[in-house]
Amino acid sequence: MEQINPAQYELVYNFFSFTIAAMGSATAFLWLNRSQVASYYRPALTISGLVTFIALYHYLRIFESWEAAYTVVDGAVQATGKKFNDAYRYVDWLLTVPLLLIELILVMRLSRSETVSKSVRLGTLAALMILLGYPGEISDQDNVRWLWWALSMIPFLWILVELFGGLSSSLAAQPESVRGLVNRARWLTVLSWSFYPVVFVLPMLGLEGAAADTAIQIGYSIADVVAKAVFGIVIYMIAVRKTEAEGGA
Amino acid sequence: MEQINPAQYELVYNFFSFTIAAMGSATAFLWLNRSQVASYYRPALTISGLVTFIALYHYLRIFESWEAAYTVVDGAVQATGKKFNDAYRYVDWLLTVPLLLIELILVMRLSRSETVSKSVRLGTLAALMILLGYPGEISDQDNVRWLWWALSMIPFLWILVELFGGLSSSLAAQPESVRGLVNRARWLTVLSWSFYPVVFVLPMLGLEGAAADTAIQIGYSIADVVAKAVFGIVIYMIAVRKTEAEGGA
Repeated sequence: MEQINPAQYELVYNFFSFTIAAMGSATAFLWLNRSQVASYYRPALTISGLVTFIALYHYLRIFESWEAAYTVVDGAVQATGKKFNDAYRYVDWLLTVPLLLIELILVMRLSRSETVSKSVRLGTLAALMILLGYPGEISDQDNVRWLWWALSMIPFLWILVELFGGLSSSLAAQPESVRGLVNRARWLTVLSWSFYPVVFVLPMLGLEGAAADTAIQIGYSIADVVAKAVFGIVIYMIAVRKTEAEGGA
Repeated sequence: MEQINPAQYELVYNFFSFTIAAMGSATAFLWLNRSQVASYYRPALTISGLVTFIALYHYLRIFESWEAAYTVVDGAVQATGKKFNDAYRYVDWLLTVPLLLIELILVMRLSRSETVSKSVRLGTLAALMILLGYPGEISDQDNVRWLWWALSMIPFLWILVELFGGLSSSLAAQPESVRGLVNRARWLTVLSWSFYPVVFVLPMLGLEGAAADTAIQIGYSIADVVAKAVFGIVIYMIAVRKTEAEGGA
């Protein structure tokens, strides 16, 4: 990564810290509120909290790595020679992205066989999507990056088809009071996830340098907070309303 | 920040440590006592504990940053060249100030639509207030600071109007036994929050130097303990009394 200025360094630093606080508080909120929902929905909240907990761990590591990669002394940023480790993001996504889809499936309360088959299918597609993105991420050759990007987009588009095709009949079976929220959760998934392949493409479009790197780190942090913490709160709200619609915890 | 003397350094250091202890114990108290209140009030205690938990995290970072910014060797304080990062406060407030208003709304047990609309309105105003304050905080030009201070005061005053206008009819609907406490919680909010814009203005009034910096750090710490930990205990007391008034947990 090319040399950044102190304001950029601090902005990224503070965004990482913000993300740590957001993921930690979402985890506590989701796990403490398990008792507010009917027994059936508790695993959905446990998993929603797991996602933010895993993200909390990785952002603590990312923060450490950012601190170790640079020193700011008397207003000047100096690279220490240690590499900023971005691979933490891929390890995080490999674990959390399948779980995010499983949260959504669990809170819909489908039949057991549907729950299992959809979880396995969507979870596998999500893991495949991340694995196919990584060889491109670590390459600095544009044609290699485009190849793996395109391969990774196949499971991504397949997931979209499943979310808007396969889950639509299940959506119609949801209680009136949560249909809007479940629909919003699907859209939140699609919109926040779409951010990642766009960011991946930026360096291939010639957007480089310290300003672009800063924007990418901040962009990923915001996308992660929306896709994990905000999404988790929506899952909680769905679980609370379904608990009420079904007659209490 | 200009050079401070060892007594000032240690005073701030010990105040940060006091605040860490206060926030950590408030978090444990609020979360452990969730079971003491009726199910409806538990999210209010969860969120009260979240606020002190988020503050705990940020005071740990502030403490670290303070330690890294100075060394005390043989009774003399020396700046290490690393900047004391005050931005942690703004990140903290951005997350906790909306949540503080939501605590108060939740414990009042309004209708669902009122709870949602008031939470969204007050939460947005609170976030706006913090965001508008930050560009002024990082500027050392008085006119820039005054501009952002004035802009930030607009949502602040709007919040006061909501607390004393919009919530007054809801206050009348509270059980007799808690009306006084709810009123006190509103006043605690107003008085502790008023401290922040006053501290912001101090350097513009010519109050600078090591003594002023020391006073500001200690002042913010006390204001944070009152606005978050003490306020959380008041929310807990309201929840306990309302649980009793409504016939038990």
